[in-house]
Amino acid sequence: MAVTEQQAPAATAGMSSRDQADQPASLVVRFGPDQPLVLDSGGRIDHLQIGYQTYGTLDGNRANAILVCHALTGDQHAANRNPVTGKPGWWDMMIGPGKPIDTDRYFVICANVVGSCMGTTGPASTNPATGRPYGLDLPVITVRDMVRAQAMLLDHLGIESLFSVAGGSLGGMQVLQWAASYPERVFSALPLAAGARHSSQNIAFHEVGRQAIMADPEWRNGRYLEAGTSPRKGLAVARMAAHITYLSDEALHRKFGRNLQDRDKPTFGFDADFQVESYLRHQGSSFVDRFDANSYLYVTRAMDYFDLAAEHGGRLANAFKGSRTRFCVASFTSDWLFPTSESKTVVRALNAAGASVSFVEIESDRGHDAFLLDEPELFSTVRGFLSSAAEARGIR
Amino acid sequence: MAVTEQQAPAATAGMSSRDQADQPASLVVRFGPDQPLVLDSGGRIDHLQIGYQTYGTLDGNRANAILVCHALTGDQHAANRNPVTGKPGWWDMMIGPGKPIDTDRYFVICANVVGSCMGTTGPASTNPATGRPYGLDLPVITVRDMVRAQAMLLDHLGIESLFSVAGGSLGGMQVLQWAASYPERVFSALPLAAGARHSSQNIAFHEVGRQAIMADPEWRNGRYLEAGTSPRKGLAVARMAAHITYLSDEALHRKFGRNLQDRDKPTFGFDADFQVESYLRHQGSSFVDRFDANSYLYVTRAMDYFDLAAEHGGRLANAFKGSRTRFCVASFTSDWLFPTSESKTVVRALNAAGASVSFVEIESDRGHDAFLLDEPELFSTVRGFLSSAAEARGIR
Repeated sequence: MAVTEQQAPAATAGMSSRDQADQPASLVVRFGPDQPLVLDSGGRIDHLQIGYQTYGTLDGNRANAILVCHALTGDQHAANRNPVTGKPGWWDMMIGPGKPIDTDRYFVICANVVGSCMGTTGPASTNPATGRPYGLDLPVITVRDMVRAQAMLLDHLGIESLFSVAGGSLGGMQVLQWAASYPERVFSALPLAAGARHSSQNIAFHEVGRQAIMADPEWRNGRYLEAGTSPRKGLAVARMAAHITYLSDEALHRKFGRNLQDRDKPTFGFDADFQVESYLRHQGSSFVDRFDANSYLYVTRAMDYFDLAAEHGGRLANAFKGSRTRFCVASFTSDWLFPTSESKTVVRALNAAGASVSFVEIESDRGHDAFLLDEPELFSTVRGFLSSAAEARGIR
Repeated sequence: MAVTEQQAPAATAGMSSRDQADQPASLVVRFGPDQPLVLDSGGRIDHLQIGYQTYGTLDGNRANAILVCHALTGDQHAANRNPVTGKPGWWDMMIGPGKPIDTDRYFVICANVVGSCMGTTGPASTNPATGRPYGLDLPVITVRDMVRAQAMLLDHLGIESLFSVAGGSLGGMQVLQWAASYPERVFSALPLAAGARHSSQNIAFHEVGRQAIMADPEWRNGRYLEAGTSPRKGLAVARMAAHITYLSDEALHRKFGRNLQDRDKPTFGFDADFQVESYLRHQGSSFVDRFDANSYLYVTRAMDYFDLAAEHGGRLANAFKGSRTRFCVASFTSDWLFPTSESKTVVRALNAAGASVSFVEIESDRGHDAFLLDEPELFSTVRGFLSSAAEARGIR
């Protein structure tokens, strides 16, 4: 049998992230070797598995499907309790009955990306050829590969055309890739806090994270799962460095300033004297409980390689030539990882391609992470854009 | 004998950084236990050693001395070939005959800061009490402690009043501390690319670096020198993360963009495919050859603790009350580590204190490191400010 479908096992908070790679607490589809995922690198995945979730109901015309794309360390659990952390889904405020992505009206699909560790094939998955985790034997993945895998999932689900694709950060990159790779399958697109390429500074921060992981002797050249070790310290340092880039200077100042942690005066030592240190250490140590270090290498690398213009002869507008997709591009004023200028480059290319595009720069001091947070202007933008597009498509 | 003075041994490029801690290739003064350095932490250093360099000639009135203060990983070799790296001094373009800090006219002193590793007492120095390197037995140091030690050096050199104090980044913090701690000894002051406190974001980046070092098992709880190991990987990661903050997004884009390193297309792997990765790895690996990991902990910590307003009842203007020092504050447009807003806070406090201050924001796309680079507007600012102050002080 070429394809097997598995219903989600009952999710209980506190499941191990390690178990999720092969047996995720979500819907799963497994493709046979007759349907390999052919990769940009020239490699292929012969037994592709995709972990995904859905919310809402597909309408009779199969016309109301929205694909939601997650960011670097996100997963398919966009709007349900996360089986590993026990926390609400990462876009719980955005997706649900009556919410901006209204599940009373739309059918929402969210799939874990290839290379990740929550049920879609990634370096922590068992390689059927060896019975061991892939580790670094998994070929390097690109954003286009992630999108190709999602297209296979949609084919499997019998969804020819998406009403919309939406996502922030790496999710926004996937949105742009979808619009470029499958324009006829995308009615509308919402790339948020993203850009059409990864900048030099962003590659640099990712490289610091990867070097931190690979410097940890417990990484064991990527074979830590078999060795029974874990590069916890290296992965925590990688997360700490990255986390700073997700916030803004203002947000850190407002949240922590120079406040001391549970003490009246400095200890004159190397403990976490400052609240911001304590917060960062917590971010690092809690991350390692839910994410695979090799997946961190793969997914950051996919982002680094992303350059939509380069895929289209160096001219970004070519990526959207003749597109009939309706775009809504949004950025945040204090986002310095994907600053407004990157979104404007996308908007200019869409204009040059004659595409339909609206653009909004949302005032927020919360940095890149704003797309995940309670931002009323973001919610009203998404709600309004989707409603208007739904009307155009005849979705009630 | 309370004080011993040592002339510089002949410097040959390629000397080990390890040797510099106790026997630097520079001038050295050693204070006896009758002149301890009393520290903000309550601790003290009983056998303080200071490595320093001088350029130019002290005039008959002892009125033309300029103290130059170095940044986090700088040293006393401001304007001579560095004995470890063999490269020109870090402010070679700024200091010398006919240069903005003109050694035909001024007598320049630059001392390695306490906690560093190039000849002034730091964690790599031999603790006279044990005969072993201090390691983490050295008390934590503050910027005020660094400045206190410099004042001891000036006393030793018979210099009562400085014509000027100048420096960028941590050097600029020292300048501000000098003006606050010893206002009567500072005729003029040039804090560049600095601020009166370390921001929450800056503390966060430092904490990432420290965690990277301490995560390296070769760090051995700070006792790596005796163990014959070195936390090279951790220190390299710390340097890589920090280095990104010294540049600007624009500078990285201009220098590297998304260019590949010695290849036509990506390798789809985790090698340094991009030039910016290769550059960063080089920055990391060359740094560990010249800097001590524990010193990195101490000096970053001193910067984190710096908060001049907090030292003065929470009101920065109090730090400069009644000051007769002439200030010239400068920032760079693309510096996001010490943005212009931090300099403006200093300027406002100086205005509120009724001090004499000029302020210039220099247009540059090179980020924080601009203060070390060939920036004509910086040079003309320093030259002009010093000339005018020299006239006021009667220096020919």
